[in-house]
This record gives sequence, C-alpha cells and structure tokens, in this order.
Amino acid sequence: MEVKVGIVGCGVVGTGTVALLLENAKVIEEKTGIKLSISKVADKDWSRPREYEVPSTLRTTDYREVIESSDIVVELVGGKDFAKRLLLEALERGKHVVTANKHLLAEDGEEIFKKAKEKGLMVGFEASVGGGIPIIKALREGLVGNRVQNIYGILNGTTNYILTQMLEQDVSFDTALKRAQELGYAEADPSLDIDGWDSAHKITLLAFVGFGKLFPFEEVYVEGIRNIDLLDVELGKDLGYTLKLLAIAKRMDSEVELRVHPTFIPSDNPLAKVSDVYNAVLVEGDFVGKTMFYGRGAGSKPTASAVVSDIVDIAKSIGSCKSQSWLWESKEGFRINKNFYSRYYLRFDVPDRPGVLAKIANVLAEYQISIASVLQKEKVCKMAGREGQPIVPLVILTHKAYEMDMQRAIREIQQLPVVEGKPVIIRVEEEAY
Amino acid sequence: MEVKVGIVGCGVVGTGTVALLLENAKVIEEKTGIKLSISKVADKDWSRPREYEVPSTLRTTDYREVIESSDIVVELVGGKDFAKRLLLEALERGKHVVTANKHLLAEDGEEIFKKAKEKGLMVGFEASVGGGIPIIKALREGLVGNRVQNIYGILNGTTNYILTQMLEQDVSFDTALKRAQELGYAEADPSLDIDGWDSAHKITLLAFVGFGKLFPFEEVYVEGIRNIDLLDVELGKDLGYTLKLLAIAKRMDSEVELRVHPTFIPSDNPLAKVSDVYNAVLVEGDFVGKTMFYGRGAGSKPTASAVVSDIVDIAKSIGSCKSQSWLWESKEGFRINKNFYSRYYLRFDVPDRPGVLAKIANVLAEYQISIASVLQKEKVCKMAGREGQPIVPLVILTHKAYEMDMQRAIREIQQLPVVEGKPVIIRVEEEAY
Repeated sequence: MEVKVGIVGCGVVGTGTVALLLENAKVIEEKTGIKLSISKVADKDWSRPREYEVPSTLRTTDYREVIESSDIVVELVGGKDFAKRLLLEALERGKHVVTANKHLLAEDGEEIFKKAKEKGLMVGFEASVGGGIPIIKALREGLVGNRVQNIYGILNGTTNYILTQMLEQDVSFDTALKRAQELGYAEADPSLDIDGWDSAHKITLLAFVGFGKLFPFEEVYVEGIRNIDLLDVELGKDLGYTLKLLAIAKRMDSEVELRVHPTFIPSDNPLAKVSDVYNAVLVEGDFVGKTMFYGRGAGSKPTASAVVSDIVDIAKSIGSCKSQSWLWESKEGFRINKNFYSRYYLRFDVPDRPGVLAKIANVLAEYQISIASVLQKEKVCKMAGREGQPIVPLVILTHKAYEMDMQRAIREIQQLPVVEGKPVIIRVEEEAY
Repeated sequence: MEVKVGIVGCGVVGTGTVALLLENAKVIEEKTGIKLSISKVADKDWSRPREYEVPSTLRTTDYREVIESSDIVVELVGGKDFAKRLLLEALERGKHVVTANKHLLAEDGEEIFKKAKEKGLMVGFEASVGGGIPIIKALREGLVGNRVQNIYGILNGTTNYILTQMLEQDVSFDTALKRAQELGYAEADPSLDIDGWDSAHKITLLAFVGFGKLFPFEEVYVEGIRNIDLLDVELGKDLGYTLKLLAIAKRMDSEVELRVHPTFIPSDNPLAKVSDVYNAVLVEGDFVGKTMFYGRGAGSKPTASAVVSDIVDIAKSIGSCKSQSWLWESKEGFRINKNFYSRYYLRFDVPDRPGVLAKIANVLAEYQISIASVLQKEKVCKMAGREGQPIVPLVILTHKAYEMDMQRAIREIQQLPVVEGKPVIIRVEEEAY
C-alpha cells in the first residue's frame, strides 16, 4: 500500500524527515508492508543551505500544494499562528496530521484535537516531546493497562546541558549558557528553554496522554534556571543531590500537580545521571511501577525518527474500516493542585551571630515546617568563599511541607531584619525514581 | 467493542494479568474504547495460594475451554512442550495469542510464527523481554523508521542483583546468590539465569524484532556469571568499569554478533547505573541514535502490564478489515559473526619475578593483540590480599582484538610454564552507551 506524505517546513527537523523517508523507505516497507512516498515539501526559502539535498521535484513554496497532494500532512514550521491555520486546514480537507509543535499543542491544542475528533482523523505528536524517544507511544500504548500516577521528565536538552556544565565543570550559569550557545544547543534568545516554557509545553502534552486531559497551559507552574547560583548546585552535590530542571505531572486521585522548576534529586536516582543534552522521562503506573525512557531530546535525525513513527502508525490505519483515535478523555474530574507538598532547600544570607537561626526556625515552626538539617556553617562559608565575613549563607533542608505554608513563611522570614536579600528556595524530590 | 481474553496458566504473571484486567478494565475502556473481558482462566491447581483471588466463575482446569471461549488466548504456563502445543492449537483454531514465554519462542518460535503468519493471526510477546518495559513495541513501532544497528541489554534481574551486590557490598558470588535466593529473586536452581540462558533467549527475541530475523538459538554465544571472582569486579571498578551480564546484538552491515557474557562497561555509561533487579535495553538506530528503556524486568504486575499492552493492540486490530502482522523478515542475508572484536581484561596468576610479563606480551603480540595497560602490581596484590606471595595476579587491558586471535593467544599463554591455573578473560565494551 502506498501512502503519500507531505511536509510543510523544511528546517532542521523537516530536512531530517525528508532524509529518513528517502533513505529508509525500503526498510520501512520491509518492516510494515507500507510504501511511504513524499508528495511535496513546502518551505518559503529554498536557498538556505541544508544538511540533506531535497530533490527539486519535491520542492514547493505553496503549502496548499502539500495538503492537496498528501494523505498525511506533516507540520514542521513551528510557531503558533501559521502552524495552527495549516493544521486546521489540513484536517478540514480530511488529511491526517503529524506535528512536532509542542508550543502550539500545549497552549492551543484544544481546537486542533477537537477538529481531528470531529473529522475522525489522527494527530500525531510523538516528535513534540523527547526527540526520538518513543515516549508518547509508550504512555499511550505500551503502558495502556496502567493508571498513570506520576510523570517526571528532563525534557529540555539546553537547560540540562547548562546544569551539567555547572555541576561537572564548576562554571557559572552565564558561562554555561555561553558554551551552550557556542555549540548551537541554545538559541540566541534562549528564554523559551531556560525559563522553563519548553519543558512546560512538553509536560502538558505528557499529562494529556497519560492522564487523559489537556490542562490549560496557564495552570502549569513554571520556574526556570536563569537565577541558579553555582553555589547551590555545589552545596546540593555535597548533600547528595543533583540539580535538574524537572518537569512533573503528579496525581493523587483526581488532584493533579503540573510543574516545572529547578529540583534537587538524589544523585543515585537514574534521572540524576541523565546529563548533557539528553532527555529522559520516568513514568510511574499502578501496575508497571517505574519505567524510564532515555535518549536525545532534539536534533534533526532523532526527531525525524519520531515523526516517521507517527507517519507509519497513521499509514497503517489508512484503509482500515475501523476509525482509530489516539485521543482519550478521562472521566475523572481532575483538579489542579498548586499547593505542592515537597521538601525544600533554603539558603538565606544572614549575619554571623547567635540567635539568627532561632529566629528563622521560629517562623518555619509557625507554619508547621519542620527542619531536617542545617548545613554546617564553616563548610558552607568555605564553599561560598565567605569565611570570616559578616554576612554568611545559612542553608536549611526541611522535611516535607506545603508550598503555600512555605511561601508564607518565606515572606515572613524575608521581613526579619537579620535576613539580607532574597532567599534561595529549591524544591527537593526524593520520590522521582 | 467487547473482546474476550482467555488465560492459560495462573501463576505469578497470570494472577497479575487477571488482577489488571479486572481492576483496570474501566481505565482501558476509557483510553481505547475497547471492553476487555476475561472469558476463562485455566490452571491445573486452583488450591495454591495467590496474591489476587480469581473469581470462581472464571476458573477452569481445561485449557480447551479457554481456547474455545476467547478471541485472544494468553499463554502463561511457561516451559516448552505444553506451551507450544497450546499456542499451535490456539492459532489453528483461529485465535490470536499472547505469551511471555521467551524460552519457547527463542528456541522454538519458528513454527509458531509460521503458523500465525499462515493464519493471519498475531503473536504478542512484549512480556517475554524486560517485564513491563515496552521494549518490543519501541523496537517495532517507535523506532520503525530506523535501521537498528545495536542492541545492548541488561535483561536478567537475578544476575544484575547478584553483580550489584558484589560491586556494592563486596560480597562473593556465592553470598550474593544466596541473598538473591532468600529474597525470591533467584530460583532454587538458578542456572537458567546465572548461566546466561535467560538473557540469551531475550536477546534472540530483541534481534528478531530489531533485525527481522529469528536467528537459530544455538548461534548465540552464552557465558554466565557463575565463575566471576569478586577480585575482578573490584579491579574493574578501580579501572572505571562496572561488570554487567550484557546481552549484545550488534550488526556491521549483514554480519551479526549475538552474545551474552560478563562485560565491563564504563561506569559513567547509563547502563552501568542500572542496578539491582532492574533491566534496561539500549537501542541504537541510524536516525534515533542511542535510546534507552529502563524498568522492572520481572514481577507479577509489571509483566502483566506488558501482557495487557499486547492484548489491547490485538484487540484494536480485531474487526479491522486490514490484516495486521507484527512479524517481518529482513531481506538481508544475515550471517552470524563469532569473531567478535572488542577490548579484553585479562588476569593471570604468575610468579612474582622478572620476565614473566615479557613472555605473555610476546604471545599477545604474535596474535596482533596490543596491550593498552598493565595494572600496577602492588595495587593488584593489595586488592587481592596477596602481597609478598610467590604467585601474584597480573592484570592486562588490551586494545581491540579479534576473539579468535584472543582465544588462540590464551591457549598458548596457558601453556607457558609461568602461568598457573585458568586465566580470567572479561570482554570490555566501550561503545555500549
């Protein structure tokens, strides 16, 4: 059976997808009996250099030509407005679609998914999370028998590279970011990555597949790594923790936590070992227990691998008399819970004199926050290079506490005359393994 | 749509599967629209205690009743003879089958797969490798666009637990095995696990799915961990390696290596961090690069999760007018290559006197085996507790060499009058990450 695939957007991932479809068409046909052919590839600029030469017969600048000529339309333009119009138009014309556009789907996917459902068409978005890691399929099919409980992800290669550099090379955030930019891992404007938005888009989509609900994007708590101080990375390391930008989707019955923030995880946790630009997703289901999926989270070829797995799945369903849908809606009335319950790492700048700790401890106690340990002052001062100074860092690890209590306590502590500047607050996840 | 599932064999995995199908039927229906119901569960002994109570209306002792009443027959009896008859009979009667029986499929699957193909039926065997890890699906579908190059697996929880104990607790193989048996991780007769057969069955099936050929089982090179000495685990650790029982399926064009043996892998390799009873599979494809899949490799509930993912996939295909097959045959004329090419760790017992190393090095050189390093004698003697003794261990790390050259060199070295007893030979895989 021959299936015609059209691609709109021939950037890094688009070019990789063309390369894969042309180079491995025979392997795919051998494996599945399906002959995939490229109908047309649209891009507005064919003059820019590409890693792989797209045959001139396939090129067009008119996306409508792609929709017209294909059974499956692959959107790889990125951005929100045009991509959305394109996907809706393709669906309207009865074409299945595949996209890697997490930004669009997470913030504005409702309308696209609704249209697909209405038309009995499929929307593949494996490539939108975790590059080549087949995590959407694993959640949707491999773990189909499970009630998914928790999803923890290192979903952004740029930030993971930066944090790995800080941890292993003892460099500041700024230096690590500059290195990432030099290597092409970070954009000139890196805010989508380093401020956590990209991870937040991805965890929204993982929660959609795992829990059966596309939560409003504005409900995701997002905190990036821009203000991370090397000192905290090092103090954490000394405590047996590795700092990661962790994306978390947790449920307790029908209460769901969706959050992205710098997180200390135990260094012997498999997620802690995921370094550089690699991504990993840990899924916990009621039967399977903990499983982890690991690989390159971005890049032309890995992402093309994911795009093509969607194409093949959709191609298999074409000509079947059973309509298939990948979208499911859970009947549980989920509620977003923002009052997270976790351990905290706190660092305050305080004068080096008796009674300071007591004052802070009093406020914490007032809010039922119990202290697990206080780091030895001499050691912290030494690591901070602030021995013998009048203002020194005070580091406290708490037991589990509620986010709202913590926020209130911190506000009150900040008002204590002994506390200088803004405290550092980093959540600790002990269960993420 | 309702699909009837029958189960034969209600041991640990069978019981877990019944529990999952009864407890999570609603979740599965919500996700997929498919209503799975259990028709019958057969076991020859209903008196033994089980973790989960199978409703008496579902119980039978007659496997034929299961075949008769089901759309999908799940074989969970294990062993070879009866399981094979059961699967062939079910297929003959037009039923799709699901099995966790790696032993049967790897040694004797040809006939079963042939029958399934002939009848246009599906054989699900996700549960046969890696417990709950959806690795078969990932290889078959998630990475469908790739030419799979290499598969490295830690596929046996029992041996991985034993090696983890040796590495982390500094105990001997015998002590570690005893602990595994006490915890129920190892059978009273542990030979299937510790001699590498279970891992060999599993890598045969992974190669089948990844490469498209069911290689004759006797072509797999198998070496277990029974003779592993704690000293080598510790010396390896000191060199930056972790010892694992690694299952390897590698290809170079159409030459395939299939092997299971104790293997040193760099300790910063993600596979090295897979400890205790966990399993992991690292797959390398031409587009996706390296991906890794990790989870519990055994146990009632994780394995049930895998069984059910096959059931759901098959159920989706029932009533479709397109016949689906999971089996593919590559047209490449694969050849098994037993002349592996890898680095080696060698340990000899030799007299502590000048000239000994020269003699051994001469033989290695004769076979084009080049020495990468020789471990410092004092250190090795100290770790072995053999300081000042007349016979001391000599440890050599080689560069990459051919297996056959190595075997010949070792035979010759063993004949040197200076070498006592049997040398220790452990392969080193640097690329497995």
